[in-house]
Amino acid sequence: MAELYITIGRQFGSGGREIGKKVAQALEIPYYDKEILAVAAQESGLSHEFLKSYDEKPTNSFLYSLVMGQQRISPGMPGNTVEQLAANAQREAVLSVAAKGSCVIVGRCADYILRDKPGLVRVFVCAGHDARLQRVIHRDGVTEKEAEEKLRKMDKTRASYYSFHTDRKWGAAESYDLCVSSSLHGVDAAVRVILEFCKG
Amino acid sequence: MAELYITIGRQFGSGGREIGKKVAQALEIPYYDKEILAVAAQESGLSHEFLKSYDEKPTNSFLYSLVMGQQRISPGMPGNTVEQLAANAQREAVLSVAAKGSCVIVGRCADYILRDKPGLVRVFVCAGHDARLQRVIHRDGVTEKEAEEKLRKMDKTRASYYSFHTDRKWGAAESYDLCVSSSLHGVDAAVRVILEFCKG
Repeated sequence: MAELYITIGRQFGSGGREIGKKVAQALEIPYYDKEILAVAAQESGLSHEFLKSYDEKPTNSFLYSLVMGQQRISPGMPGNTVEQLAANAQREAVLSVAAKGSCVIVGRCADYILRDKPGLVRVFVCAGHDARLQRVIHRDGVTEKEAEEKLRKMDKTRASYYSFHTDRKWGAAESYDLCVSSSLHGVDAAVRVILEFCKG
Repeated sequence: MAELYITIGRQFGSGGREIGKKVAQALEIPYYDKEILAVAAQESGLSHEFLKSYDEKPTNSFLYSLVMGQQRISPGMPGNTVEQLAANAQREAVLSVAAKGSCVIVGRCADYILRDKPGLVRVFVCAGHDARLQRVIHRDGVTEKEAEEKLRKMDKTRASYYSFHTDRKWGAAESYDLCVSSSLHGVDAAVRVILEFCKG
């Protein structure tokens, strides 16, 4: 089989993590989500805790730059803020795990970082609002109100991080090769569709 | 088989029409694209030419309403402008063909019009910019410059029409159940993925 790099963007609470894991299991290839942080820590010398605190989060200086219309940091640019340091370490980790061969990578703008790699399949997972709400309530053990707030905040955060590090729009169909809802027919149907698409 | 209503939104030049036809053929169910106009003409008494001139086009009074922040015309509202008349006739035609059983409907906000129907699968087809450009150049026999202009104009028009008649965003992954690019693996792979997803 030719090398396959499946990147998975996802709405918060859509089950993207579970779907990514199942796709990786079916193809018998490595899966990276938060695992990217460990690789980034090991390779950059930055602490795992430091990287975790900036994981997919545009923090104040990011937002300040956005507001001020300052130039986007492309993933290839050397960093001069702590956020850039963290983002660059993650970028190097994404390149490093992809250099080892086929894999599934969730989030972290991996679709953009690997954009010139043959064998790249860019997936986005979404789901209906109620399905996401229920997933977050049960998974995270929070109230409905807290889950609503989490959904709103996390999607906004991910969208900002993505916009900042790429020239594409997070969650827009044209930014991906395949977008699938996990709520119409469930997680396993989404996995099946992704596997079917990856056959080429 | 339970009834299946597959609606296909599409970027201009993405091959959505061809994909919709192939999906309908594979499932042996009717396919409607511009065919909806004939049904609308027959049922509304409006002329085919009149309906064609407003087909998926937000015209001046639409845009005026948008600019003025006037209330969106929901597909159920009675029309009092020519554009509303045309849109309502198309809406009735969409409901009418869906009432006959399983079908594939391309465009015309059918995904929104049929939103409460069990068996609805909302698909969006997109493709890379270069692939769309080449398709339009060859299909429509135009220059590259003309094709560029057509892409820009048609997507904008479709997005405006969709925004005006629904409470959703055209081309956003979360507005659909499945979005697939026809350029990564081609039209037939997109057809396969849609058929796989429709199995549920």
